[in-house]
Amino acid sequence: MNSKEFSNPAELKDTRISDSFWRGIQETVRTEMLPYQWAALNDRIPGAAKSWCMRNYRVAGEMIRSGKERHYAGDYGFYREPEGVEQPDEFYGWVFQDSDFSKWVEAVAYSLTLHPDEKLEQTADEAIDIVCAAQREDGYLDTYYILGGMDGALTNMRDHHEMYCLGHLIEGAVAYHQATGKDQLLRAACRYADWAAERLGRGEGQKRGYPGHEIAEMALVRLYQETGEKKYLDFAKYFVDERGQSPNYFDLEAEARGAKKTDLSYNQAHIPVREQSEAVGHAVRAMYLYAGMADVARLTGDESLLDACGRLWKSVVREKLYITGGVGGTHVGEAFSDPYDLPNDAAYSETCAAIGLAFFARRMLQIHPKAEIADVMEMALYNTVIAGMAMDGKSFFYVNPLESVPEHVKKDRRLDHVKTVRQKWFGCACCPPNIARTTLSLGAYAWTVSEDTIYTHLYAGGEIKAKMNGKDIRLEIQSGFPWDGNVKVTVRAEEPVSGTLAFRLPGWCENSRIEAGNVSREERDGYLYLSGEWTDGQEIRLSFPMKVRTVRANPNVRADQGKVAVRRGPLTYCAEEADNGKGLHLWRLTGEKTEETEMEIAGRKVVGLKMSAMKTVVPEDAPLYSETEPEEEAGTLTMIPYYAWDNRGEGEMSVFVRV
Amino acid sequence: MNSKEFSNPAELKDTRISDSFWRGIQETVRTEMLPYQWAALNDRIPGAAKSWCMRNYRVAGEMIRSGKERHYAGDYGFYREPEGVEQPDEFYGWVFQDSDFSKWVEAVAYSLTLHPDEKLEQTADEAIDIVCAAQREDGYLDTYYILGGMDGALTNMRDHHEMYCLGHLIEGAVAYHQATGKDQLLRAACRYADWAAERLGRGEGQKRGYPGHEIAEMALVRLYQETGEKKYLDFAKYFVDERGQSPNYFDLEAEARGAKKTDLSYNQAHIPVREQSEAVGHAVRAMYLYAGMADVARLTGDESLLDACGRLWKSVVREKLYITGGVGGTHVGEAFSDPYDLPNDAAYSETCAAIGLAFFARRMLQIHPKAEIADVMEMALYNTVIAGMAMDGKSFFYVNPLESVPEHVKKDRRLDHVKTVRQKWFGCACCPPNIARTTLSLGAYAWTVSEDTIYTHLYAGGEIKAKMNGKDIRLEIQSGFPWDGNVKVTVRAEEPVSGTLAFRLPGWCENSRIEAGNVSREERDGYLYLSGEWTDGQEIRLSFPMKVRTVRANPNVRADQGKVAVRRGPLTYCAEEADNGKGLHLWRLTGEKTEETEMEIAGRKVVGLKMSAMKTVVPEDAPLYSETEPEEEAGTLTMIPYYAWDNRGEGEMSVFVRV
Repeated sequence: MNSKEFSNPAELKDTRISDSFWRGIQETVRTEMLPYQWAALNDRIPGAAKSWCMRNYRVAGEMIRSGKERHYAGDYGFYREPEGVEQPDEFYGWVFQDSDFSKWVEAVAYSLTLHPDEKLEQTADEAIDIVCAAQREDGYLDTYYILGGMDGALTNMRDHHEMYCLGHLIEGAVAYHQATGKDQLLRAACRYADWAAERLGRGEGQKRGYPGHEIAEMALVRLYQETGEKKYLDFAKYFVDERGQSPNYFDLEAEARGAKKTDLSYNQAHIPVREQSEAVGHAVRAMYLYAGMADVARLTGDESLLDACGRLWKSVVREKLYITGGVGGTHVGEAFSDPYDLPNDAAYSETCAAIGLAFFARRMLQIHPKAEIADVMEMALYNTVIAGMAMDGKSFFYVNPLESVPEHVKKDRRLDHVKTVRQKWFGCACCPPNIARTTLSLGAYAWTVSEDTIYTHLYAGGEIKAKMNGKDIRLEIQSGFPWDGNVKVTVRAEEPVSGTLAFRLPGWCENSRIEAGNVSREERDGYLYLSGEWTDGQEIRLSFPMKVRTVRANPNVRADQGKVAVRRGPLTYCAEEADNGKGLHLWRLTGEKTEETEMEIAGRKVVGLKMSAMKTVVPEDAPLYSETEPEEEAGTLTMIPYYAWDNRGEGEMSVFVRV
Repeated sequence: MNSKEFSNPAELKDTRISDSFWRGIQETVRTEMLPYQWAALNDRIPGAAKSWCMRNYRVAGEMIRSGKERHYAGDYGFYREPEGVEQPDEFYGWVFQDSDFSKWVEAVAYSLTLHPDEKLEQTADEAIDIVCAAQREDGYLDTYYILGGMDGALTNMRDHHEMYCLGHLIEGAVAYHQATGKDQLLRAACRYADWAAERLGRGEGQKRGYPGHEIAEMALVRLYQETGEKKYLDFAKYFVDERGQSPNYFDLEAEARGAKKTDLSYNQAHIPVREQSEAVGHAVRAMYLYAGMADVARLTGDESLLDACGRLWKSVVREKLYITGGVGGTHVGEAFSDPYDLPNDAAYSETCAAIGLAFFARRMLQIHPKAEIADVMEMALYNTVIAGMAMDGKSFFYVNPLESVPEHVKKDRRLDHVKTVRQKWFGCACCPPNIARTTLSLGAYAWTVSEDTIYTHLYAGGEIKAKMNGKDIRLEIQSGFPWDGNVKVTVRAEEPVSGTLAFRLPGWCENSRIEAGNVSREERDGYLYLSGEWTDGQEIRLSFPMKVRTVRANPNVRADQGKVAVRRGPLTYCAEEADNGKGLHLWRLTGEKTEETEMEIAGRKVVGLKMSAMKTVVPEDAPLYSETEPEEEAGTLTMIPYYAWDNRGEGEMSVFVRV
């Protein structure tokens, strides 16, 4: 591996998204979600469960200022509410509540980059003051133990989230530094990272711990890239290397606490990461870990680690991926199920896990651009990730089923994890802010850049500026995605620039056509590499016709036998009760005719599909079992993009349809 | 309703089962299960969890003898194990552990009737001595509170099982009295029933309680029929009438205990029984209640109660019945799921619930013989009930799924309730002894008798003696069931007897043929009534050709769309890995050709089926999703009777198959 060849995500300030599809989503996030989220962090949402997030920081700041410390009297558990009256010096909320601020400030940073806003920046600066005031002199910054007693710190890395909060703090701090140039939060993040690095490791007097919930791995790599301090890369590498080693740290730690051992595959800590080949356990944790592993592999040139990433990637996309780009087949542990177990109605498919999949994919693309990897990243981003948010930005799915029959879901306690409509916000506020930070930083997924190449992975409309072999170049992109596959790229350069523009050839398109004039063309791993001298005004026209495709799951997927999913371009489709009435399982596609039709959902235009189908007639007063073949009547099944479901009231939905 | 018209089950001593199918099962139960069960009750099974059943009775007997009483210091919970050393005067085991003895003694009684055995009878007599010695002077007989403190008695009727234990005690006592003429246990049961009737009711100083787990209703009716004491019928009727009345007794009782309210539909106590129309809650409880309701309706001529039974019957068979005769679609509360929710892999379908369905069906048949009711009783008995026991009588299923992929089931914690092979015995010993008492008393399901009519509901080979209009008549039956539908009935009578022989015309047979000579024939509700004068040696020949039938579930059943189940005669079939290899979901029946074939499973002959089918080819290294239609290869799918599955090692099984 030659790390010189690897690309880096486009710096957000050098990108702009202007197509109506993503721009609309980003605007919804900016205008709806960010203010809502800030109100939530400050417990100003009437009727919502309290977050206590900013309040915990404030209270911790008081304690730091006063010089008092609480004696650690044992674990507060995952979630803590006041018993009776709220005490002015106690921690409340989820064990990872601090990270809510970090996710918010990260999204704010991206928003400020894309859309400067003095007032928002001021709000963020004030919030950062509050957070930094809560940092202990030694650098520690987790209000759970600052308020609960520092003797508890790093005694339960398996279940508690100090390193998770550190990770998110770093992500937020780096983003804010990049967006504003202000380094107050970055310095705080460094100090907390230094605190942790001093105490965790293989040296004498250090604990050989690592995060129970991964994210610090990739965050520390980002901190290294931002600060140039190699110690942060080393720390990330230590976390990756130490995970799952024997004797198992989490088991030793549990024993020391007198706690029960748990299934370590939940935390991907059952064996060392280089020996892992199957994606297992809590899906978000797994995705964050694999992304961090890819980061470390890229920057250290570690082939065995990259091999593990490749095996785990294959495990996900070959055996454990929903056609919606979601992952996590079971609510038990919010986890991957076993290979090919992809139930539609009971799917977990957490929004955050699909986001994590995009993280992992982007990092794999940085190392080795392959269209099949970008296809999966696109599938996650255009389907499950944005399905997580209502089109008005006001409600959210954590769990993204591929089939929902509300009347049944509400009665079936086995489906308690499934919601039939998006929810306002959640006490455990992981998915909504994750959607915010991901969609606002879309440019970093659409484009990556190396010394001499600009990679276009996603066809968002907008622009990207970069250095190509040291010279400035800018691409202006007009894109019809996801509705049509026509893309025009116009080169802007003050002087001619030599180098390569690499464009992904989507796997879903069999007859892409690319007109690029007089440059050399080379196709490799599903990317078209156009190399030559680029001059101002030069145009590249890409055409990726979006045929409606019926896709079958591998025969090993028991849940989908005899069924197909419908896709068009990057989008996966679903049938909804709003168009088709109840009893979606009664429909069977005949494949005879498919018409594309413009529809409006929640005020936005989408391409719907009208597909020839037969519907089983349910006879009046029919017996439960009968030898009679059911009658069918001909009809048309209307399908809409999956991401747009549940924007027209509660109703049935199904992705897979019988054929 | 004219209760004169109703039939009663044949007295077991007047029946004999001699066909190889049922006789084989009865012999297995008699020779394998009864001795094993007795050893289990006495904690003599090496390696098995202790039952403590007979031990609790012994210890309670000591306490009674000594005149000591324990002060009630609170609830022991559902299950209690020694903390450290076993105390000589404490209750251990399940709250309903006493009933294990009662179920055993009931099965022993049937066994003694069919197959006298002095040694077994002596063992039973000794056990009865032990049990009766544990009865308090006031009549109370539940070791949980005798040992735990009598102040706890009747303080938690919702969750605890005093009335359930009473019910089983009565069933066992009546059966033993009928089998041996001995009344020691019957007197004990009466005294305990009297104790309860004195304390429960609408009178002053009485509690308006009723059983949390039903069975006492039908047991008390049986006690009434055995003793002629109408007070027991009244007590049963009180239980039925009071259930679900407002204010809810279970809620009031919970409040008094400081316990939480629970979902009362679990106990069928959410509304009064006469207002119930949907079968809900714990399936075994529901079945036992409905059976008791039918008993009370029959003997009191209560039309509104019978109407409720009719509605509940319809709810079960129209919306909530598996094609295997099992009921209970969800493990959550071991309960009925909502209408048409009949998942195959996650089915609960408890063996005891299928047994309860047979109880309910038999009672409905006593009131109004309809073939469609007997069809369901037959479906339960010939499929799920006997699937509950391995062919060698040594292992048992509680849960009877319609689809099992062991490799997956073992990994999927959502299917923790499903076992991939039958288990040796269970701490909660409900199903095995229930199979024992039901299969040994098969005669009481095959035939019911009224003043002038002998009803044949099931075509077991054997004989039935009865009075017909006061005169003795005996039927000798030769039957090919369940393998062929040829039945010969020979009348034995010392003098000519006038009356009716009613034969069920199975709903699964379209072209039954019955030759009966010179008698009047009338078909009503699927029964053929042959009336006239019957003389010795007269023969009736019945022919019910057993065509292989492919049966579809109602289109509302989401789990079974595009699939069929295969039935032949009373049997439902399934495909097993042992015959077809792994990947049963890959098969699709073409309907082209079906051959019947004699197979041997666990040393017994069964009719297997070889059916034309196509099997999807799983390509090597195939992607998870693809536009390519999968290839299929022609083959033959072998199907065996469902009851016989899992007798050839662990493997996949599926009842429903794609078409």
